[in-house]
Amino acid sequence: MRSYQTRKGFWREAVALQGSITVHVLPSILFFGLLGSIVCAVAWFTQHMFDPSFTLDIRPLGFAGAVLGILLVIRLNAGYDRWWEARTKWGGIVNQSRNLVISAMAYGPHDSEWRENVVRWTAVFPYVAHLSLRSEQPSAETGNLIGIERANELAEANHMPSLVALRLAELLQDATERFAMDGFAFMQIDRERALLIDHIGACERILATPLPRIYSITIRRFILLFLLILPIALLHISDTVWLIPVITMLVAYPLLTLDQIGVELENPFSEDNLSHLPLDDISANIERNLFAMSELKPTKAP
Amino acid sequence: MRSYQTRKGFWREAVALQGSITVHVLPSILFFGLLGSIVCAVAWFTQHMFDPSFTLDIRPLGFAGAVLGILLVIRLNAGYDRWWEARTKWGGIVNQSRNLVISAMAYGPHDSEWRENVVRWTAVFPYVAHLSLRSEQPSAETGNLIGIERANELAEANHMPSLVALRLAELLQDATERFAMDGFAFMQIDRERALLIDHIGACERILATPLPRIYSITIRRFILLFLLILPIALLHISDTVWLIPVITMLVAYPLLTLDQIGVELENPFSEDNLSHLPLDDISANIERNLFAMSELKPTKAP
Amino acid sequence: MRSYQTRKGFWREAVALQGSITVHVLPSILFFGLLGSIVCAVAWFTQHMFDPSFTLDIRPLGFAGAVLGILLVIRLNAGYDRWWEARTKWGGIVNQSRNLVISAMAYGPHDSEWRENVVRWTAVFPYVAHLSLRSEQPSAETGNLIGIERANELAEANHMPSLVALRLAELLQDATERFAMDGFAFMQIDRERALLIDHIGACERILATPLPRIYSITIRRFILLFLLILPIALLHISDTVWLIPVITMLVAYPLLTLDQIGVELENPFSEDNLSHLPLDDISANIERNLFAMSELKPTKAP
Amino acid sequence: MRSYQTRKGFWREAVALQGSITVHVLPSILFFGLLGSIVCAVAWFTQHMFDPSFTLDIRPLGFAGAVLGILLVIRLNAGYDRWWEARTKWGGIVNQSRNLVISAMAYGPHDSEWRENVVRWTAVFPYVAHLSLRSEQPSAETGNLIGIERANELAEANHMPSLVALRLAELLQDATERFAMDGFAFMQIDRERALLIDHIGACERILATPLPRIYSITIRRFILLFLLILPIALLHISDTVWLIPVITMLVAYPLLTLDQIGVELENPFSEDNLSHLPLDDISANIERNLFAMSELKPTKAP
Amino acid sequence: MRSYQTRKGFWREAVALQGSITVHVLPSILFFGLLGSIVCAVAWFTQHMFDPSFTLDIRPLGFAGAVLGILLVIRLNAGYDRWWEARTKWGGIVNQSRNLVISAMAYGPHDSEWRENVVRWTAVFPYVAHLSLRSEQPSAETGNLIGIERANELAEANHMPSLVALRLAELLQDATERFAMDGFAFMQIDRERALLIDHIGACERILATPLPRIYSITIRRFILLFLLILPIALLHISDTVWLIPVITMLVAYPLLTLDQIGVELENPFSEDNLSHLPLDDISANIERNLFAMSELKPTKAP
Repeated sequence: MRSYQTRKGFWREAVALQGSITVHVLPSILFFGLLGSIVCAVAWFTQHMFDPSFTLDIRPLGFAGAVLGILLVIRLNAGYDRWWEARTKWGGIVNQSRNLVISAMAYGPHDSEWRENVVRWTAVFPYVAHLSLRSEQPSAETGNLIGIERANELAEANHMPSLVALRLAELLQDATERFAMDGFAFMQIDRERALLIDHIGACERILATPLPRIYSITIRRFILLFLLILPIALLHISDTVWLIPVITMLVAYPLLTLDQIGVELENPFSEDNLSHLPLDDISANIERNLFAMSELKPTKAP
Repeated sequence: MRSYQTRKGFWREAVALQGSITVHVLPSILFFGLLGSIVCAVAWFTQHMFDPSFTLDIRPLGFAGAVLGILLVIRLNAGYDRWWEARTKWGGIVNQSRNLVISAMAYGPHDSEWRENVVRWTAVFPYVAHLSLRSEQPSAETGNLIGIERANELAEANHMPSLVALRLAELLQDATERFAMDGFAFMQIDRERALLIDHIGACERILATPLPRIYSITIRRFILLFLLILPIALLHISDTVWLIPVITMLVAYPLLTLDQIGVELENPFSEDNLSHLPLDDISANIERNLFAMSELKPTKAP
Repeated sequence: MRSYQTRKGFWREAVALQGSITVHVLPSILFFGLLGSIVCAVAWFTQHMFDPSFTLDIRPLGFAGAVLGILLVIRLNAGYDRWWEARTKWGGIVNQSRNLVISAMAYGPHDSEWRENVVRWTAVFPYVAHLSLRSEQPSAETGNLIGIERANELAEANHMPSLVALRLAELLQDATERFAMDGFAFMQIDRERALLIDHIGACERILATPLPRIYSITIRRFILLFLLILPIALLHISDTVWLIPVITMLVAYPLLTLDQIGVELENPFSEDNLSHLPLDDISANIERNLFAMSELKPTKAP
Repeated sequence: MRSYQTRKGFWREAVALQGSITVHVLPSILFFGLLGSIVCAVAWFTQHMFDPSFTLDIRPLGFAGAVLGILLVIRLNAGYDRWWEARTKWGGIVNQSRNLVISAMAYGPHDSEWRENVVRWTAVFPYVAHLSLRSEQPSAETGNLIGIERANELAEANHMPSLVALRLAELLQDATERFAMDGFAFMQIDRERALLIDHIGACERILATPLPRIYSITIRRFILLFLLILPIALLHISDTVWLIPVITMLVAYPLLTLDQIGVELENPFSEDNLSHLPLDDISANIERNLFAMSELKPTKAP
Repeated sequence: MRSYQTRKGFWREAVALQGSITVHVLPSILFFGLLGSIVCAVAWFTQHMFDPSFTLDIRPLGFAGAVLGILLVIRLNAGYDRWWEARTKWGGIVNQSRNLVISAMAYGPHDSEWRENVVRWTAVFPYVAHLSLRSEQPSAETGNLIGIERANELAEANHMPSLVALRLAELLQDATERFAMDGFAFMQIDRERALLIDHIGACERILATPLPRIYSITIRRFILLFLLILPIALLHISDTVWLIPVITMLVAYPLLTLDQIGVELENPFSEDNLSHLPLDDISANIERNLFAMSELKPTKAP
């Protein structure tokens, strides 16, 4: 988990190599530079051959670029909102896990096996949730928490988080039936359990639903069109032809970068994406919290 | 369900044919090209006849275009918000269906017929919800889940989702009366059932309420006005007359496209619209989930 | 309820007469045209008399216009948000009405008189809510649903929706006391009833609270100032004096229209406003729904 | 409570005197005019003495002004959001008061003293809430509602609204213990009571937390800087020196006004601010509502 | 807690020294001034040596600057939203603390030791919450409230707020078991307790999750690029070379300031940041409130 930026952070980030998106958009930028050169060459050739001498003013293109930029900024903002919503839902998993265990410890039966089971199954939920979001198989942590056998059972489930929630619900039912847990206490704990399903469901929604395709297709087509027209328009305000591909690339750089960041932020769960959420850290943190609260020894034994 | 864009996705989308809106706005673009030609011809003719030589600066039009573009971007954003709200409500249907069945399995009576009925009626809700949103008749899936007879009964209902919710409520009442299900468990399950009605009601609200008509009329009138004035203004900054219809069309393209996407996103349920939500996939997914959890065999038999 | 726009809708709306706001801002536009002419005349006269020859650049005014346009767009957006919130609250009335009747039918006493009363008093809530929002007296529908006598009693109430909610609460109390309805079922139904009051209260808040007056005064003053300065500034970029009032009107048109739409959207309940919500349709729809669910005959008899 | 704007409202508001913010920013505007004159004089003098003839283009300043304008518009929007949130919370106080009394009347004990007490203490909550927000002492209305003695007791409380909520809670406890009110009914009523504390707490948060100081300091410094540079830049596009202070003032007017409105909207409770919320009207309205519902005589006797 | 701005506040803030961010971005501004001088020198030298005479128009850069400015404004807004969310969650801690104590006083057992314990442990929650957010050890206030011994126990906890919530839950369980507190009252109080965990969890989320790193890296790289190109572009519109570093610094000032404020607002808890939330004041205020309500003497004795 990276720490907050200090006030000296400007220069460190402005020239950062790691975690930068620049390297991923570089091929497209260079391609647009090349395209710009070709467009210029053709236009220049045509002009000198037939001298059509069309005089086109660059400025309206500036307005078009501003609107395109604002469109990209708004889209970036939508991507950020999704990313933040995903983080909020994971924060909810943290909160509900804590509340579930606090209430179980205070209001649940004193049976030590039951208590241990509740802590272990609650602690396994975040691991299972992010395995499910990344379509991975149960990991070592899962086995440590609930035993290899049940971890394998989980691995075969159609939807792992639902199965964990079902096991927790069965534990609550057990507490009510066998240990005569109070109905009001049951209700409070079950509400937290049900919210866990709401949170993971919201994350799955974010994962399964990229921005509308017509939205992203259109934005990219606008960028393409804009960067194709730009060199032609530049021909008429600059006599220094070799500058044109350079300017085209300088304009392509922010446009393509903003577009790419919007895409990166769409899926905050995949570890392939820059700026993905630190789900492993959060899960491990929840586990430590829950075990500390229940005064159980921290994991490593089923 | 399309997968997330990879980093190489820029070019694939920038030149995509399928799922593009361009083809739908092309006639209007061409029409504005034609209109631009006519306006130019008339203006050019008038000018050469009577030589009024009015000198109009193009630049204020640039500002007008920028504001118009921002208006369209904001409207597009409102459309996207509706689309995302619709998706969120469907995510809620997923969550509530899961929670309903988890709680019913854990806290409900052990009677196997009751359990099967709860799963089947819960699984039928999403199908019925999207049939209702698309004004279609119950499909094969509905019949498979609850039997032809009850499916026909549904088909005649004034509001299908309400009838399914009523049947679920009757099952809960049955559990309480016949099988003495705990009151607290009843309350938890019934809350999920009630939320199903809230979610479908929200989707119906989105379906029944396009953006205010004065909003969309005004935007389109602004576009029309802008694209009519544009060729006249261009006459005075370019001597290359044949370029004017081309530029008009280049400006019309993003304006009309942004307007059209805003409209497409307004109704996220209709399969006629690009970028509609994959309601069939979501419904089938819920069904698989619920049957897996209840350890019933997956459908295909009433 | 108008249907969604088809893809051919652009031209139909761009030239629509009905539902357009243009006719309402036309007098102001013409007035600004006249004002522009006068300003021009005076300025032109002054200039030729004393030849002060002040050279003012139009372009900064373009930026001012852009900021003014964005301010109007943001305000329009705030108006739309209110409109959409009002619609959402009415959607909530639909949902809560349905849930109230579903739960009453499933969990309530089997006494047919009680059931009919619940349905009738629930169905009357939306009618009473919109009468209250429009400050109208109870209508024929109200009388049909709950009888003339009680409708008259309602008409004299200080706050009609509260009285309906009180009657519903009394019915619930009756069910608990006389028919021994389960406490948990009571709670679920009462929650829906309480939400009805929240929804109507939210609508009354929207109705009673226009945008802050300093906000709207300021915007209109900016528009006035801008449109007064515009003709003077235009004098110096165009020698074609007769064009200046035309351009002033062309600029006044979008500014005044955006301002007026923002105002229209502020009060989504009044039938005088374009784009008001179809409250009558929604109420009738709820009534049909509720009666269908309760298998009562649809209205027309107290 | 002012009524909604009619369509003829444009001119009335554009030239309104009352409720306008203009008079409050006028001194600063004039000061910037003076400053502009001085800056011009100095610059003009320097230029004629040493003829440095620096040629500075005004246009980049236009972009800076546009960004500054947008920053102010966004800040204004944040101020409006706070204002609207405050209004929404007060709407919540209305809703919860109504629901509390409806439920108490329907489900509470029939003891007439208890009922009167509930109505009186609920009706006093909004009065006490706005006294607390404006740091005022209990008013005549408070005394009328709950008697002078208890009003004095309130006046000495550390936090008046909490004390009223405590009294309401004691009434509910009394109903449960003495009159055997149903537990479910208790819960429904208590939830409304608890929400009253949430609403007033939210208003106190808005009151106690202006926008971040670095935010407002920065905006004002940008405005200052912009208005100091503006006259220098204007020197080079206009030869009519006497026009420069006029233009400076015309630019200062919208900037300072937008800044001031943002500040006014920050505190929606103080009666010193234009566009403060009509808390007295809302409180009196709640009182009338509650007394009508409970069929008590409207106030004026302890 | 600073008071609200009066209408005379403009000048006081525009020239404020304390609480200003300017001093922190000054080094970077000066550095860009230097860089601008160097870039100019090199460019000027190159131009006079080889006379490439490339003519580059400054205006497209204006549009780029406007988009960059808008990007910064939107980011600033996202930072403000986080800051406001953090404040809202702390407002929630205030509300839930009050409601918890109100309900405990009204519905809880009359045992004076139990009552004192509830008040003390509730009052310690906000102190512990902000110690935990600032990674500090329990302070004197904590010891005063719950005794040195328990304060030390807290200091060793894995997550202090969870431990306090657990102690509160144990007190509630104690009330139910030993003093036969009503189940409905238990539920109402426990809901407030559970919300405390939700609020502190949300604050921890805000603390642990800065804006996505690719977002901030990209913005800073855009600023760097823009400020490097700016002097070159200025060379061609101004012959007064000494003005160029000045203008560069004038442009760098708002860009770097907006960037820095966005960063400051990201972490609203650290006292190192300007505009951090007054958590100490809020905590002390809650303590005073709770003790006043419970009629206990205000602290200072365990």
